[in-house]
Amino acid sequence: MDSELLKKIIDSVEDTKTAPVGQTRQQGCNITEFVGSGMGDTVGLVIANLDYHLHEKMKLDPKFRSIGIVSSRTGGAPHVMSADEAVKATNTEIVSVEFCRDTKGGAGHGSTIIFASEDVSDSRRAVEILLTNLERNFGDVYGCDAGHIELHYTARASYALNKAFSAPIGKAFGITVGAPAAVGLLMADVAMKTANVDIVTYASPAVGTCFSNEIIITFSGDSGAVRQSVLAARDVGLGVLRGMGQDPQSLTKPNL
Amino acid sequence: MDSELLKKIIDSVEDTKTAPVGQTRQQGCNITEFVGSGMGDTVGLVIANLDYHLHEKMKLDPKFRSIGIVSSRTGGAPHVMSADEAVKATNTEIVSVEFCRDTKGGAGHGSTIIFASEDVSDSRRAVEILLTNLERNFGDVYGCDAGHIELHYTARASYALNKAFSAPIGKAFGITVGAPAAVGLLMADVAMKTANVDIVTYASPAVGTCFSNEIIITFSGDSGAVRQSVLAARDVGLGVLRGMGQDPQSLTKPNL
Amino acid sequence: MDSELLKKIIDSVEDTKTAPVGQTRQQGCNITEFVGSGMGDTVGLVIANLDYHLHEKMKLDPKFRSIGIVSSRTGGAPHVMSADEAVKATNTEIVSVEFCRDTKGGAGHGSTIIFASEDVSDSRRAVEILLTNLERNFGDVYGCDAGHIELHYTARASYALNKAFSAPIGKAFGITVGAPAAVGLLMADVAMKTANVDIVTYASPAVGTCFSNEIIITFSGDSGAVRQSVLAARDVGLGVLRGMGQDPQSLTKPNL
Repeated sequence: MDSELLKKIIDSVEDTKTAPVGQTRQQGCNITEFVGSGMGDTVGLVIANLDYHLHEKMKLDPKFRSIGIVSSRTGGAPHVMSADEAVKATNTEIVSVEFCRDTKGGAGHGSTIIFASEDVSDSRRAVEILLTNLERNFGDVYGCDAGHIELHYTARASYALNKAFSAPIGKAFGITVGAPAAVGLLMADVAMKTANVDIVTYASPAVGTCFSNEIIITFSGDSGAVRQSVLAARDVGLGVLRGMGQDPQSLTKPNL
Repeated sequence: MDSELLKKIIDSVEDTKTAPVGQTRQQGCNITEFVGSGMGDTVGLVIANLDYHLHEKMKLDPKFRSIGIVSSRTGGAPHVMSADEAVKATNTEIVSVEFCRDTKGGAGHGSTIIFASEDVSDSRRAVEILLTNLERNFGDVYGCDAGHIELHYTARASYALNKAFSAPIGKAFGITVGAPAAVGLLMADVAMKTANVDIVTYASPAVGTCFSNEIIITFSGDSGAVRQSVLAARDVGLGVLRGMGQDPQSLTKPNL
Repeated sequence: MDSELLKKIIDSVEDTKTAPVGQTRQQGCNITEFVGSGMGDTVGLVIANLDYHLHEKMKLDPKFRSIGIVSSRTGGAPHVMSADEAVKATNTEIVSVEFCRDTKGGAGHGSTIIFASEDVSDSRRAVEILLTNLERNFGDVYGCDAGHIELHYTARASYALNKAFSAPIGKAFGITVGAPAAVGLLMADVAMKTANVDIVTYASPAVGTCFSNEIIITFSGDSGAVRQSVLAARDVGLGVLRGMGQDPQSLTKPNL
């Protein structure tokens, strides 16, 4: 029994496939600032010279006038992972990562990520790279009607993961997410016991999330250990959702 | 491709049309306190003499015993705009404006507005006026599956807009809302650059909203300037949503 | 006109009925920690010896290593009521009650409750009892497309109600919930005026909820008075929802 949420997301993926992210979509839009759109109702925009008073209200560092901004209805960690690759590859800084309580009626978050650069072409490039990596980073998100689990792994965390989750720069970093929240706690416990990793953040509905129905941990350590922990968390998370009579499916194609 | 949210809202409008707001609906209800219902699952009630201990827990000013209260599942700004007209036309005060993270799975807010008066008939009248104005104030809300945009303009802000958004009383006032949030930021930037307006508030998922997936700005200034800014924000907001492959539609009939 | 939310919940109940809570469901799951699942996408798990570092991040009392954890997508108060019965019947403590903004697009909360015990079998037993009581405690939740109301009554509140709502231990305790929020306020007013009860907590979208679209009050007093207040609140709440053109239905079977 597939969930409506899942169907919506799958539809959105199929839309994205017929219209490659960051390319065809853009051709249909006559707004200069529009960079592209992607899975999870993601939209990427650039503003070459942000209005001065708006800039001030947003409490951004005055030196950044060119920004790239990406928002999604569904997806927090996949977007941060993709932003991490974007910031590694471009001359930009991550100035803000915000989550919201969304997923179109699902249990989790949407996100808004702002890149800044002196030259707008760098922000544009960062948004393009984020959109390009999105589909892959949704691969280890498994959805079903009752909830979802997510696994994320990188061998070298960079500034986006640092901004969003205080990841130590340059070290292997893992994220486990489970919804309803109890699923996430068991995944967290298994991740911590599987290998020698250091917990970095713990978030639950009341603390560290936007009242989402998730328990999320992040951890760093040796790359082999982080990867092993993430894999073990995936297996227990999928097992619990199946125990609830669900059939969780990858939203695109699993990487791990 | 119409969204489910949109369909729900449209259904709700049609319901409202066959049963005129604040009139027929009321006839079917034998609860004295029931004033009427409206678009966006809005309900309007009055309480002639609010319970003393409840009053205290709500931290309302003790002088107000008669209250009118309106809540909606979908719609924050349209309700505040309607309340603003109600407060101008009646002998009531706005004692509380609260938003919630709702819209039935959409990206935005629902709202709860409390009027107070010495005489309950004033509160009742305020609730009736709010309900009557609601449909018009939903006219510049454009919805689609991926998100929505909203535009609001008044030539003279009053106490409801002041309570909710710190609007300077008596001056022209505009509101722009975009979801997913990035859409709202571009609208904000365009609004600020289009005419000589003063930004009053800035709200994003993490600050000033209920973790909704919106960026919202409000601004005041000369009435021509405010109107021009709102119109320019509308055009860029619709353009971005169309760039995402969406077909945003007014929830009722555009006014601007 | 049944709501989608209602249908989802009803589907979930029917699923639960064909697979008795905490029994058959468990047989299909090979995860040791899985205790069972139930209505409202509820899942119950135990962890015999919670990881030390995770324990620390969760700020749990170090003496508790064995925990039982229950999360739901739909249902806050029904889970707290069920946990209250579980804690009365077992040698466990309630260490945490968290709510989240969920109900799969509805107006209310999901919840996460953690029991702790020295022996894991006690936590397991508590989770089982919670799951067993859930269906009954959903009986006085009435749902419809526009919102919902909830009534809860116990003759003797225990530690779960105390943790979640500061209920005086051992005294009769009542909860009224209405969504959209205005419905809840009228229910609260009627409850307070009906009998001699003492208000314990008041929660609205902006204060004391997770930005849900509800007004919730809790009260204690003589058991007859509490029961009478709850019943009067039910009648006015159902009346208002019907006034909105809705047909609110019990999610299972009314107890009151």
